[in-house]
Amino acid sequence: MNKNMLGSRERPSTYLNLPYYLHTYLGQLPDPPLSPKTNQPIGPEALAPLFPMELVKQEVSLEKEIPIPDEVRQLYTMFRPSPLLRAKRLEKALDTPAHIYFKYEGVSPVGSHKLNTALAQAYYNKKEGIRALTTETGAGQWGSALALACRMFGLSCHVFMVKGSYEQKPYRRTVMKLYGATVTPSPSDTTHAGRAFLKHFPDTRGSLGMAISEAIEMAVTKPHTHYALGSVLNHVMLHQTIIGQEAMRQMEKEGEYPDVVIGCCGGGSNLAGIAFPFLAQKLSGRVKHLRVVAVEPTACPSLTRGVYRYDSGDTAGMTPLLKMYTMGSDFIPSSIHAGGLRYHGDSPLVSFLYHKKRIEAAAYDQLDVFAAAKVFAQNEGIIPAPESAHAVKHAIVEAIRAKEEGKKKVILFNMSGHGLLDLEGYEQYMEGKLKRE
Amino acid sequence: MNKNMLGSRERPSTYLNLPYYLHTYLGQLPDPPLSPKTNQPIGPEALAPLFPMELVKQEVSLEKEIPIPDEVRQLYTMFRPSPLLRAKRLEKALDTPAHIYFKYEGVSPVGSHKLNTALAQAYYNKKEGIRALTTETGAGQWGSALALACRMFGLSCHVFMVKGSYEQKPYRRTVMKLYGATVTPSPSDTTHAGRAFLKHFPDTRGSLGMAISEAIEMAVTKPHTHYALGSVLNHVMLHQTIIGQEAMRQMEKEGEYPDVVIGCCGGGSNLAGIAFPFLAQKLSGRVKHLRVVAVEPTACPSLTRGVYRYDSGDTAGMTPLLKMYTMGSDFIPSSIHAGGLRYHGDSPLVSFLYHKKRIEAAAYDQLDVFAAAKVFAQNEGIIPAPESAHAVKHAIVEAIRAKEEGKKKVILFNMSGHGLLDLEGYEQYMEGKLKRE
Repeated sequence: MNKNMLGSRERPSTYLNLPYYLHTYLGQLPDPPLSPKTNQPIGPEALAPLFPMELVKQEVSLEKEIPIPDEVRQLYTMFRPSPLLRAKRLEKALDTPAHIYFKYEGVSPVGSHKLNTALAQAYYNKKEGIRALTTETGAGQWGSALALACRMFGLSCHVFMVKGSYEQKPYRRTVMKLYGATVTPSPSDTTHAGRAFLKHFPDTRGSLGMAISEAIEMAVTKPHTHYALGSVLNHVMLHQTIIGQEAMRQMEKEGEYPDVVIGCCGGGSNLAGIAFPFLAQKLSGRVKHLRVVAVEPTACPSLTRGVYRYDSGDTAGMTPLLKMYTMGSDFIPSSIHAGGLRYHGDSPLVSFLYHKKRIEAAAYDQLDVFAAAKVFAQNEGIIPAPESAHAVKHAIVEAIRAKEEGKKKVILFNMSGHGLLDLEGYEQYMEGKLKRE
Repeated sequence: MNKNMLGSRERPSTYLNLPYYLHTYLGQLPDPPLSPKTNQPIGPEALAPLFPMELVKQEVSLEKEIPIPDEVRQLYTMFRPSPLLRAKRLEKALDTPAHIYFKYEGVSPVGSHKLNTALAQAYYNKKEGIRALTTETGAGQWGSALALACRMFGLSCHVFMVKGSYEQKPYRRTVMKLYGATVTPSPSDTTHAGRAFLKHFPDTRGSLGMAISEAIEMAVTKPHTHYALGSVLNHVMLHQTIIGQEAMRQMEKEGEYPDVVIGCCGGGSNLAGIAFPFLAQKLSGRVKHLRVVAVEPTACPSLTRGVYRYDSGDTAGMTPLLKMYTMGSDFIPSSIHAGGLRYHGDSPLVSFLYHKKRIEAAAYDQLDVFAAAKVFAQNEGIIPAPESAHAVKHAIVEAIRAKEEGKKKVILFNMSGHGLLDLEGYEQYMEGKLKRE
């Protein structure tokens, strides 16, 4: 699409592992996960029932880079390299001297960046003889990605979908079914955990926490079955670095380097994907003036208003304790349309970077986010996913600031997905039905 | 995405005009449009109230090629060149010696090829001082494309959307509104025609024919306002040839040339877009063995079961009479999910080619079409629009035939759009709710 297309030899052949850079140049690493029972650091054996050994190793790796398996690279050609586009019409509409670039992950068949890690996770599981994966999904972006990835590697896929979304958002459910996945509204009567939830809260419309419990229980109790997570963990951040690595090479072809890199931030894989390769350059002293901004909703402001402490990854307390910025694992955010940003915590790596003031954070109300997304769509055509629209909002803020300061500024943000399955939110916004939090 | 990416100098700079090739190498042209009042060939003045003079000229041009305006080429970079992908996993699943390539137009921000002509039409209208465009839309693919194109050129856009679709398919309506278009369910009380329809058929859920009448009436009666059509006419076929021109250059980079080129066929712009550049080579004797197949639904089989005669382009008889394969302008096809293929006639150019046996046609029931689309999605990830799924179905038929005959065969089809706003049809298919016609 653009002049910055990457030839086959210019495409990343490895994932970039940020912990290497933290260890080498900062001499520090995030505090390790703890067992919820002993409060002691967990070993690989704690994760082995859920994840294949290759992913467990990636979770704690201090290698500089990890090769992308050939089979995964081959599947990435379905949609990668994704385009790096310059939002010239938006620049003109804002009358800004800033150059606004975005990496467009919506060209993936499932419409978002989630497929980058889904394919890698399915591959490593398949290689270890696993036959089925379970997972949870809210709005369904992650569930769709894992469903397709499982299909590509001949694995069964069982998705526990938050009941409210299952009923209200039938279309991503249809996508998962089309790829051959089994989709169960959660809580369900197919697991002990689900039956307990139903007994205690018969009218519940479910939550991610409940769905995680069901998915983990099924993975642990069924033979040849593992669990897969779409964000938060180190290996997920790792796989998403393909986004930023491509973007860096594409920016180079444009003769530019970003002054600021922006990603929306729920669990953190979106931000990590675009920003970690640039942060690695900054940590190693190869660039000086780079800023990175994580953008979150005011409805779930874990970085900007949360506390940096150990907390559980799920509501029921089944996961290891993770050191992260958190609203508390019992926090229930209001039902904003950016379902992917409604996580109570943040990736330990992203949290560590924020704690060390290596990245910044900003939070916006969804009304302002939809307003920004509309301006973007009217100028660039692409309708952003509500999650990605948070990055759009902050990119516009940075561009307006550049104008006020009369400075040229190069902005890069991650347009992590399109909003074609989220149009209900846009309709409500245009009809004036959304309220400020 | 693939090795066949086109550099900026390799991208088409002109539209390919098939009538030149028909005139030069066949010495024949389709019969001209006639006035519905006099039954005599119409002159440019009959089209001038609806279309800008540049498009009227293109409608009757015998030039070999027509330059793509710079402003339009610039906007094409939003999504063009679109990818040419090889469906290797589908080939493997079918165990066929055939090579199956598809041109993927779903990367357009509106999700289909319709934007190719919408941008050109909006440009020529803007250049001639027009301030607003009207059009009709069924499911909304064309309306979305024109809405975005109008936005890009600062034109107002008024879309009359068939009332049944307006109520049942709210999401494409949301897309049009987001781009700033006014969307009116048709028939409406905003036009004489609409009021007459409502008086005579108070319970009607509308039809494309009624919506066309309303759009034309508004264009003719409002100052600085024109009408735009998304298929059928020569200038629309012309603009879509950018698809086939790109595909030809991309196939060349793969070292291949198609034995058969396939497109679904409603009004004809989808088929024309992918096939006309290849047909031009065949007409001029540069290739010998190329076949072209138009694929239509059995629910609206204008080529395979219609009659080649003059007929009206709309139900109310307001348009010029066009020589085409037609089911009759009062034919109402059943409400299949491929709304874009529910047109009673066919492009005069496509009809002429079929009459002269220069192209073939095939028709399939939507049950078989959805079955093929599911196989495609499970292997290639992309969920085809129900319209494009007709081309998928025939590509699979050709691939299976190649296997039976033990022949290598190179298949190219137009994946003209994704089906992410048509998932209701897939859901009904998977739930067994669709019946054979």
